[in-house]
Amino acid sequence: MIEPIRWSKEGVRILDQTLLPSRVEYVICRDYHEVADAIRTMKIRGAPAIGIAAAMGVALGAKGIDEEDRDRFFHEFGRVCQEFLSTRPTAVNLAWAINRMKAVICKEGEFSLECARESLLCEALRILDEDIRTNMLIGKHGEALISSGQRILTHCNAGALATGGYGTALGIIRAVWDAGKRISVLADETRPALQGARLTAWELIQDDIPVTLITDNMAGECMRRGMVDAVIVGADRITTRGDAANKIGTYTLSVMARTHNIPFYVAAPVSTIDFDLELGDDIPIEERGSEEITHINGKRIAPEGIGVFNPAFDVTPARLISAIITEKGIITPPYEDSIYKLKHS
Amino acid sequence: MIEPIRWSKEGVRILDQTLLPSRVEYVICRDYHEVADAIRTMKIRGAPAIGIAAAMGVALGAKGIDEEDRDRFFHEFGRVCQEFLSTRPTAVNLAWAINRMKAVICKEGEFSLECARESLLCEALRILDEDIRTNMLIGKHGEALISSGQRILTHCNAGALATGGYGTALGIIRAVWDAGKRISVLADETRPALQGARLTAWELIQDDIPVTLITDNMAGECMRRGMVDAVIVGADRITTRGDAANKIGTYTLSVMARTHNIPFYVAAPVSTIDFDLELGDDIPIEERGSEEITHINGKRIAPEGIGVFNPAFDVTPARLISAIITEKGIITPPYEDSIYKLKHS
Repeated sequence: MIEPIRWSKEGVRILDQTLLPSRVEYVICRDYHEVADAIRTMKIRGAPAIGIAAAMGVALGAKGIDEEDRDRFFHEFGRVCQEFLSTRPTAVNLAWAINRMKAVICKEGEFSLECARESLLCEALRILDEDIRTNMLIGKHGEALISSGQRILTHCNAGALATGGYGTALGIIRAVWDAGKRISVLADETRPALQGARLTAWELIQDDIPVTLITDNMAGECMRRGMVDAVIVGADRITTRGDAANKIGTYTLSVMARTHNIPFYVAAPVSTIDFDLELGDDIPIEERGSEEITHINGKRIAPEGIGVFNPAFDVTPARLISAIITEKGIITPPYEDSIYKLKHS
Repeated sequence: MIEPIRWSKEGVRILDQTLLPSRVEYVICRDYHEVADAIRTMKIRGAPAIGIAAAMGVALGAKGIDEEDRDRFFHEFGRVCQEFLSTRPTAVNLAWAINRMKAVICKEGEFSLECARESLLCEALRILDEDIRTNMLIGKHGEALISSGQRILTHCNAGALATGGYGTALGIIRAVWDAGKRISVLADETRPALQGARLTAWELIQDDIPVTLITDNMAGECMRRGMVDAVIVGADRITTRGDAANKIGTYTLSVMARTHNIPFYVAAPVSTIDFDLELGDDIPIEERGSEEITHINGKRIAPEGIGVFNPAFDVTPARLISAIITEKGIITPPYEDSIYKLKHS
């Protein structure tokens, strides 16, 4: 089983995704700065996974606050949380996980700081456990949408590596495969960080699920040729109207899917929904450094002096999303209503 | 001035585009097999450029046929032509150039073989010269379509490097720039061979034309953000109905441009029109090796055992093309009529 993140006695153990698929190596983050750095440098990535990493990082940070004075402890704890909130802006799971961690501290207000530290660790482990079960439920719900023989296009990596395990979009693909349906997957390589080529391809090969790799600019042509029966992607943040931020290129896929009458599904836990945000245009979109585009494997591919634009995500408008698959079930348009009901269910 | 190909005393001198932008190196092809190999391995690429290379290769091949017997000479000459025809299937300019070379031989039927060899070389040099003048005319016609301040998206490399010099799509951009209009260019990196990142970016930097590099999957989002006023691409083959084969990803760009009401222009010489083909679906689409996708700079990026689909081109249907810019002028829909008129003008 792929374990992207785990708590260990030495600290937070993270599978270094920047080295996959050529090397399977783990890093041990012994203080919370190292966890935050692993998130920033994409050793661990994917909205649910960075939520879990932040939770574990906060637990690790709390462990390391050498204060017995409550006020000073809480002040330091706030700084730890703030460091994680600033690592990556788009995925709302990060704020969601940190809010859960903060809520523990409030609840534990009457207890000793030692007890608070223990409770924080318990909460982080609970977030991890829940995430894996959540993904299995997403898989179970989503499985009903896919028939044997279908060919599924996916983008980036919304797999075990992007979560606590099992995956969201790839969780559905795993559930469909485990149900005995003979499907195959078309994986976009997903430039610039190549999560499709490096991570999704690796995961699916491990599970013996048939997968074919294409470059991002081939997806539309594959749709036109009738090679795609459904598109399933993950999400980094979904608004109450159903607009969904996901890896750059997802918006284009949604337009192409609609053009070719192919269903376009978003698979995500409820924690990916930002109940405080209505419009996709208000989702903060992270821009990353130019080297991600100008260099591959440390080698320059573009000329010196070239300007670069590198938005890491885009927003797919709700009208182009056929359904959103959550652990609580499949929701369909109008999303204002179905997401409202989900919140209050 | 960028000179992708030139005839020299030693043979055909080709700027090795696989080494750009990090190294500017020329290879001298001393026999026609080496020219054919340079085309196959994409040391030289781009529909007009491979037409020129094939013409020079045929001239070089004829020079090397050590036969004084006319029949045996013509037999060998046929084999030379055949080798070039089989190098790459999609661009029609290859067949067009070879047909021009064959026509010389027919005309020269009454002359000595020595004279035929000379005439073949003259014809190849004429094809090169004409191509550069053709591109300047394409630039002149296309310039009228673009206003100062506009931002132009281009895909792959339809520049000086893809032609005898000056370029088709980039020829228009050069003409617009030289007319004093302050434009800027957004260049798709164009996986798998990265012609945008390696070649288009390099060409435009040489000419001090503002250029920003993006990955292919960012183009749609740039359009949505209002960062693109026009798309200009080249073509490898255009049918009499106006369907245009071009680098993989072009079809997706055309759909996205239409979705965002952005004009989508194809720039190509008349030699790119296949007057014998009506339907885009009948254009042969080259599939290239899997290593282009699984490896970058010789280093593996995808896991061992991954299946790959690597079509090098796709076809943009005529209905998504706002205009085709040729050396004979700008043609617009209905293309059946305008291309028919072009043929008989």
